[in-house]
Amino acid sequence: MLRFRIEKTTGAVADPADRAARPRAGEVATAHGRFCTPLFMPVGTQGTVKGVTPESLEAIGVQVILANAYHLYLRPGIEAVAQLGGLHRFMGWSRPILTDSGGFQVFSLGGLQKIDESGVTFKSHLDGSTHHYSPEKAMTVQAGLGADIIMPLDECLPYPATWEQASASVDLTTRWAERCLDAQQRPSEQSLFGIVQGGAFPDLRQRSAEALVAMDFPGYAIGGLSVGEPAEVLLSVLDTLVERLPSDRPRYLMGVGTPDLLVEGVRRGIDMFDCVLPTRTARLGTALVPQGRLVLRNAAYARDGRPIQEDCACYTCRTFSRGYIRHLLKAREMLGGQLITVHNLWYLTRLMESIRTAVLAGEFDGFANEFWRRRSRGDVTEDDQ
Amino acid sequence: MLRFRIEKTTGAVADPADRAARPRAGEVATAHGRFCTPLFMPVGTQGTVKGVTPESLEAIGVQVILANAYHLYLRPGIEAVAQLGGLHRFMGWSRPILTDSGGFQVFSLGGLQKIDESGVTFKSHLDGSTHHYSPEKAMTVQAGLGADIIMPLDECLPYPATWEQASASVDLTTRWAERCLDAQQRPSEQSLFGIVQGGAFPDLRQRSAEALVAMDFPGYAIGGLSVGEPAEVLLSVLDTLVERLPSDRPRYLMGVGTPDLLVEGVRRGIDMFDCVLPTRTARLGTALVPQGRLVLRNAAYARDGRPIQEDCACYTCRTFSRGYIRHLLKAREMLGGQLITVHNLWYLTRLMESIRTAVLAGEFDGFANEFWRRRSRGDVTEDDQ
Repeated sequence: MLRFRIEKTTGAVADPADRAARPRAGEVATAHGRFCTPLFMPVGTQGTVKGVTPESLEAIGVQVILANAYHLYLRPGIEAVAQLGGLHRFMGWSRPILTDSGGFQVFSLGGLQKIDESGVTFKSHLDGSTHHYSPEKAMTVQAGLGADIIMPLDECLPYPATWEQASASVDLTTRWAERCLDAQQRPSEQSLFGIVQGGAFPDLRQRSAEALVAMDFPGYAIGGLSVGEPAEVLLSVLDTLVERLPSDRPRYLMGVGTPDLLVEGVRRGIDMFDCVLPTRTARLGTALVPQGRLVLRNAAYARDGRPIQEDCACYTCRTFSRGYIRHLLKAREMLGGQLITVHNLWYLTRLMESIRTAVLAGEFDGFANEFWRRRSRGDVTEDDQ
Repeated sequence: MLRFRIEKTTGAVADPADRAARPRAGEVATAHGRFCTPLFMPVGTQGTVKGVTPESLEAIGVQVILANAYHLYLRPGIEAVAQLGGLHRFMGWSRPILTDSGGFQVFSLGGLQKIDESGVTFKSHLDGSTHHYSPEKAMTVQAGLGADIIMPLDECLPYPATWEQASASVDLTTRWAERCLDAQQRPSEQSLFGIVQGGAFPDLRQRSAEALVAMDFPGYAIGGLSVGEPAEVLLSVLDTLVERLPSDRPRYLMGVGTPDLLVEGVRRGIDMFDCVLPTRTARLGTALVPQGRLVLRNAAYARDGRPIQEDCACYTCRTFSRGYIRHLLKAREMLGGQLITVHNLWYLTRLMESIRTAVLAGEFDGFANEFWRRRSRGDVTEDDQ
């Protein structure tokens, strides 16, 4: 079972009754060790952070990896993973893992056939075979994988949805959450988080949060955001929602990982984030830097001997020039994506560490101001050449 | 300039006048440090060993990398590499590099348009643009790259070729070698090897070797083998050719890297090898093991918790199961090819170290017998499941 210790809450004495949405720093203990918050978790959908070894992830300082129960259920199958020692051993990753239930994938990968009280029926995106996923099945699957933090099956509506759609969805997700809680198989080793839904409707978010809080989950995720809505909508949901979640439980904002939203999420009391952004954009040739993004395929970098980021200590920046990485991208060499992935994960990991340090020092506001000041210099590709 | 020191020649006192084709162990000193022979060199055609960082290559114990002047000339261009600090700095590789001239690529990539005394005219495989490559151009290009060992432009005939074709080709290659020697720009930092050609014809191999030896190259490569001829033809060429090369110069068998031919090449006095085999087969899902090859996509490995090779200490074998690697291959995850590449390079690097140790101990024959005994157990995929 997960233990969450808050080390510092900005502008407040740490108090379990204090639900104000403030930046905070904490530590979570799991069966596979501790991790510090606020935290960004890289995504390893199929049991691998694409192109990066666990050894490199450890060297970068990654503390938790997210994997996807939907993908691993379809391939290689839960029994195969269990027989190969469970997900940690399978992946060669001894630190904590969080698995998403697969709800989001069922709804986003286009295979949904039917949704009713029992669960969802969907076609595999791999071979078209039909599968039924229930709250109980989501628990069985994730028990087989053995992650430290697991997620209930939830319904993920596309944005925008009507209030009526979102309202029915919240209630279904709430009933499914209760069934997941009942069906959970290894509560002493795995912590099941609740997932707050409700789209962009404050009253539905409130209803969802209150119902889940009454069930007393060890942590709360915020789902259904970063699905196409403007950033202001996302932040305004956080503004009214976070204070309704107990301050003595970790708060996890699902699917969010742009540097801007990491800073603004922490400002609003979020502890954990995950996103494919740093790894996916890396493979497409884009590096994250304090000023914004570096599109390394640009001809401007062909003979640029500087590292991606001048003051970065990652392996990529210590070893290679922008010109070399551009060459790898143009030559379709896989090492190009690998090297940018290492940098992007390093950048986000250091960013979260810096945020944490600032929170511990009571200096979050100053940190955020400086973050936004550097950022306002604009995209390096346009600004720096 | 390269210095070659022979530490041990099997069954003989080291003697520069002794040209017998015997297994031997030595050390080569270059401007970027020393390397031990016999040696296998991984191929980094476009300035990267596909999917492996220089840091990993160093951890594996790789001593020399081969890169290709033809590919780097076309992309990113020699001036770009030179401006980014030369090939070593460009790639982030501080140990020795050998560049092939690009002759083989001109002949094998299908872009050849004309060949005459002056050199070759070819179309780029990238954009169809027309280029002319002369012996002098090959030297200019490789001077710009800055490898420690460079190669002359040579004509590479397909197998089989007629005696008349091969004879004319040998003479042209000899005249080009002489022009390369004259045109070499940085002889104090770069060592130009001669390339013996002559196909499968002993008299032409002899003529080629004698002409090149008379030019006094610091090392001799054997080209035009492993181009489709049976292994027995390759070995019979070595049987009569190697003793015609001076024993006090390194002997480099180009494009050969199957474990079998590494052992049999060393037996015949070869010091250096390169081949895309371990890296290319790895990306296709095949691992090299003492018994032969492991085709990791096979369903037999889906729940196999053993490492690729039980007694292997490489990162891949220390960390991952066959079942996990098969999953990565089936899921088209780039990490699969990366991990097998690490194993295959580790396997060949350790194989060459073991051969070297055996030669130094005067026990090459016993080592080779044991190598062949394990191998005769057959392919693991068929034999071990």
